[in-house]
Amino acid sequence: MAVYTEVTDDELARLIAGYDLGALLSYKGIAEGVENTNYMVHTSEGTFILTLYERRVDTADLPFFLGLLEHLNRRGISCPLPVRNRNGEVLTEISGRTAAIVTFLEGVWPRRPRVEHCAEVGRALAGLHLAGKDFALTRRNALGLEGWHALFDRFAPRADEIARGLGNLIAYELAYLDRAWPKDLPSGVIHADLFPDNVFFIGDKLSGLIDFYFACNDAWAYDLAICLNAWCFEADFAFNATKARALLSAYQSARPLTEAEYEAFPTLARGAALRFLLTRSHDWLHTDPNALVKPHDPNAYVRRLRFHQEVNSPGEYGLERVR
Amino acid sequence: MAVYTEVTDDELARLIAGYDLGALLSYKGIAEGVENTNYMVHTSEGTFILTLYERRVDTADLPFFLGLLEHLNRRGISCPLPVRNRNGEVLTEISGRTAAIVTFLEGVWPRRPRVEHCAEVGRALAGLHLAGKDFALTRRNALGLEGWHALFDRFAPRADEIARGLGNLIAYELAYLDRAWPKDLPSGVIHADLFPDNVFFIGDKLSGLIDFYFACNDAWAYDLAICLNAWCFEADFAFNATKARALLSAYQSARPLTEAEYEAFPTLARGAALRFLLTRSHDWLHTDPNALVKPHDPNAYVRRLRFHQEVNSPGEYGLERVR
Repeated sequence: MAVYTEVTDDELARLIAGYDLGALLSYKGIAEGVENTNYMVHTSEGTFILTLYERRVDTADLPFFLGLLEHLNRRGISCPLPVRNRNGEVLTEISGRTAAIVTFLEGVWPRRPRVEHCAEVGRALAGLHLAGKDFALTRRNALGLEGWHALFDRFAPRADEIARGLGNLIAYELAYLDRAWPKDLPSGVIHADLFPDNVFFIGDKLSGLIDFYFACNDAWAYDLAICLNAWCFEADFAFNATKARALLSAYQSARPLTEAEYEAFPTLARGAALRFLLTRSHDWLHTDPNALVKPHDPNAYVRRLRFHQEVNSPGEYGLERVR
Repeated sequence: MAVYTEVTDDELARLIAGYDLGALLSYKGIAEGVENTNYMVHTSEGTFILTLYERRVDTADLPFFLGLLEHLNRRGISCPLPVRNRNGEVLTEISGRTAAIVTFLEGVWPRRPRVEHCAEVGRALAGLHLAGKDFALTRRNALGLEGWHALFDRFAPRADEIARGLGNLIAYELAYLDRAWPKDLPSGVIHADLFPDNVFFIGDKLSGLIDFYFACNDAWAYDLAICLNAWCFEADFAFNATKARALLSAYQSARPLTEAEYEAFPTLARGAALRFLLTRSHDWLHTDPNALVKPHDPNAYVRRLRFHQEVNSPGEYGLERVR
């Protein structure tokens, strides 16, 4: 939980006066959120989120992220819409931080995803991929294969402080992925972090997608593999084939995988597991014990990675070959 | 900032289904709040606050606090209104905590109170005192003179870890108040914690009062002295006589002080300063350095207490004798 930067009432009232949002009625710091400071703001025009961008976000990336949200909204995707001020700008400044105001999305994220949630997410992810097709800006995936090596180099000597043998596991996997990582798969804008806390539901119906601050250009099927990791394992690390089938077939009903994507899927699943294992391991070793936000346990992704290493064919995930 | 207890979407949806509040649309943990966990909840019927009562609140006091809010709402005071579930109950349970849902009040609290804010608060405090007159329940002030002694006993040997001479200052002041503390002043329900973060404004107009979890029965003028301490000193600890005059005269325009209250006011101001000096000192010494909430600096109340000790007459506060 985290409000890193305090905003005063006078500052916020002054900021809001620069938008067509009516009068400031109230604002509350939101406890969720790891990267940035978020306030929920009520004005006479409705509910909005004010985000202050903290350390970890490179402000040079913000035009991509916020432009993407505008593009996706135009394409009918339910995600936060950046609000422009009277100068037509999306980016502003408050309390010494670069900031933006976006529309508030109703919905709750599922703490215990069910099969129906997984199907909704699969469908929404395919919709997102298709809607992003003609977005003009691009952003390299800093957390791709090359980035994984760089990240591992930063903590490799200390990896076994987390779990015995973790250094070897990661080194082995990186060597495998260097050989096996697919090239030239169908690509475009991917969300790259579509975990349950970034997907809102009202009842069983998906109401919106949030937190596009890892979005980038990469293979679409890799994004699907991230979702498989995020949505289809239980708290005891068991793979849930029913959820996976629901996720994958809902995705394919909107965008069927190519033969190359189908064949590559187990490798993509390994890469996706490794990506989160790497960032979690790094954060585990580098988080100040007094930090407001507790790091995620890397072990959940050790377990997923070991599962994927045993998979022999795409069909074991419940993935159907459709063409 | 503090969300001590997590609430899952399923639990909350189940809880909300027991009220006439329509469907759950969203909920966010609020970073503000020291004592309890608060969620801002949107349902199809509006915005509400779900409070989970943590350690420091004695659940035996909740019927007083929540009954008071209902009473004050009936008397036209703008404060949170507890929502009853379909069984007619205000208190419920979620995530292993006693909890309640109250209406959400729009407004922002002033980070830098101005004279106009002080006048509004004075008026609102008098209104609160008068509206509480016929409230049936009572609650002893656990943080009265007797409670101050008990609290000091808990940290007296370590007081000078905070500031050299603090132990002597408090012991001297307690001895003075034992002799001088007024008895039989006009009494009733007091808020007892009406700091700026508990008073909401929309523009310059007061929109509501919150956080009644220190409310109790005690001398009304003592509550006014608490507000004087909370609202009429600057960040550099200088007393602001203009703000004090605005606060006190607005209060008196709705409820003029008696002669006994007028005479006692400097002593009440000393007691009010000591009360916050004591709790802040205690918390300063007893807060886990890893705690989510940083304790307030006791020194602000050392400075206020020393100021009050130099005051020779009620008129020095800008208090007018009206009868």
